[in-house]
Amino acid sequence: MKLMRVGQPGQEKPAILDADGKIRDLSAHVRDIGGEAISPDGLKTIENLDLSSLPVLSEDRIGACVSGTGKFICIGLNFSDHAAETGAKVPPEPVIFMKATSAIVGPDDNVVIPRGSEKTDWEVELGVVIGKTAKYVSEADALDYVAGYCVSHDVSERAFQTERQGQWTKGKSCDTFGPIGPWLVTKDEVADPQNLGMWLKVNGETMQNGSSKTMVYGVAHVVSYLSQFMSLHPGDIISTGTPPGVGLGMKPPRFLKAGDVVELGIDGLGTQKQTFIADI
Amino acid sequence: MKLMRVGQPGQEKPAILDADGKIRDLSAHVRDIGGEAISPDGLKTIENLDLSSLPVLSEDRIGACVSGTGKFICIGLNFSDHAAETGAKVPPEPVIFMKATSAIVGPDDNVVIPRGSEKTDWEVELGVVIGKTAKYVSEADALDYVAGYCVSHDVSERAFQTERQGQWTKGKSCDTFGPIGPWLVTKDEVADPQNLGMWLKVNGETMQNGSSKTMVYGVAHVVSYLSQFMSLHPGDIISTGTPPGVGLGMKPPRFLKAGDVVELGIDGLGTQKQTFIADI
Repeated sequence: MKLMRVGQPGQEKPAILDADGKIRDLSAHVRDIGGEAISPDGLKTIENLDLSSLPVLSEDRIGACVSGTGKFICIGLNFSDHAAETGAKVPPEPVIFMKATSAIVGPDDNVVIPRGSEKTDWEVELGVVIGKTAKYVSEADALDYVAGYCVSHDVSERAFQTERQGQWTKGKSCDTFGPIGPWLVTKDEVADPQNLGMWLKVNGETMQNGSSKTMVYGVAHVVSYLSQFMSLHPGDIISTGTPPGVGLGMKPPRFLKAGDVVELGIDGLGTQKQTFIADI
Repeated sequence: MKLMRVGQPGQEKPAILDADGKIRDLSAHVRDIGGEAISPDGLKTIENLDLSSLPVLSEDRIGACVSGTGKFICIGLNFSDHAAETGAKVPPEPVIFMKATSAIVGPDDNVVIPRGSEKTDWEVELGVVIGKTAKYVSEADALDYVAGYCVSHDVSERAFQTERQGQWTKGKSCDTFGPIGPWLVTKDEVADPQNLGMWLKVNGETMQNGSSKTMVYGVAHVVSYLSQFMSLHPGDIISTGTPPGVGLGMKPPRFLKAGDVVELGIDGLGTQKQTFIADI
């Protein structure tokens, strides 16, 4: 299933994309796409609906595909080639950092370059959405706790991240730096999360063209690993790292400026398109 | 005002401590202590209530004093003496990191030492609770965006924090590592947030005995600073760093084990008392 949220910011309705590409309103059946609605039982309830009987919504705006996210956890340097392009080694265990949940926006919303930013950069990432509370789960069982996957754009300000005193969160948490969606694609539709093409273009030019195949720590490992440190809850999002091709890794480095248009996508998970704008 | 939340986990009622030390039920007047209820207008509504007319609640359990926290932001190495004891220099601008909001618990709840932990440590901190959305605010205006203050225990696992690959969040986000409260003390009752005694005892022995006077970056600076990077929203909590006396800084270092009892407090903001237990 392709679950989504449609409507103006703060007023999104839960919805599902049907086989004909129509957006069907789920609001009579679930409160939102998040929490219990994306638990195994919640997803079964949606699966059993007759979609053709549900009202069709117009696509005025697509919101982030998950609501009520408590934690937005990112895995750093999780593609060997990307680690190399930033001059870092592949870490011997996952590097994790948090992105503020207040950074989350819809997949096609404008992204605001913060005041004083000169190094705003792009990162296409595979987002993993938790559907069941996970604590101390094994790698073998880890995918039982996953509701599905989405495209996640881990927008990053490199100077804020690395030149403004330790801890990357500062360069990752700016408002609008977390476009999520268009869809939460339930895991039954993703045959192998470790074999998904991932791409990103800036003004039509391909910058990233990789695959989740080259992820160092795969989805099951990451979910199990994180659950050793903290409980993961339904609606939590894990952004699993980016393949090579970010602006920081170019010679010379290249960063985004107002007016730039970024498009990105992952096989089977849909595409995003953002215009970057100045914060005036 | 001393605002609080009383009841079993997930069922806490909003409440206020009256002048006689009675806990008065606010649930007929505000939904919870958080969001709009702690905005300037929300606080005025509570101020105008006749507390003597409100039902008295028994103190069966005190929950975290704020609900709906979207961001739990911590300032690292923000007391010059504490930086020294950990072998770090005072940073030229604030170091920030995130603590998972899923770590938040009540002030007297048990704290669970995670499996595999050998270096669970204590940190008494002044918590700042945001009451109004703040973005690009000046230091002069910053306190206008603060609802009040609370005691925050930034429990930390030092090996997870510093020996398990970059980014401190891993050692700060374990379940129950964020006791908050007992009260959100509104800012009108705190004459000077930079002149509050702060203390912490382990099994009755004083370990930390400092003052917010020696904070490097004060509350107004920190709120203004953070708001340059991201919007702060009502209910967000900023934990502003710890004075000297943590276990990591002792020679030899000393860490918490199951059965240890930690008590901590800040002048005018109340006290906390936690028993540390094993995660079985």
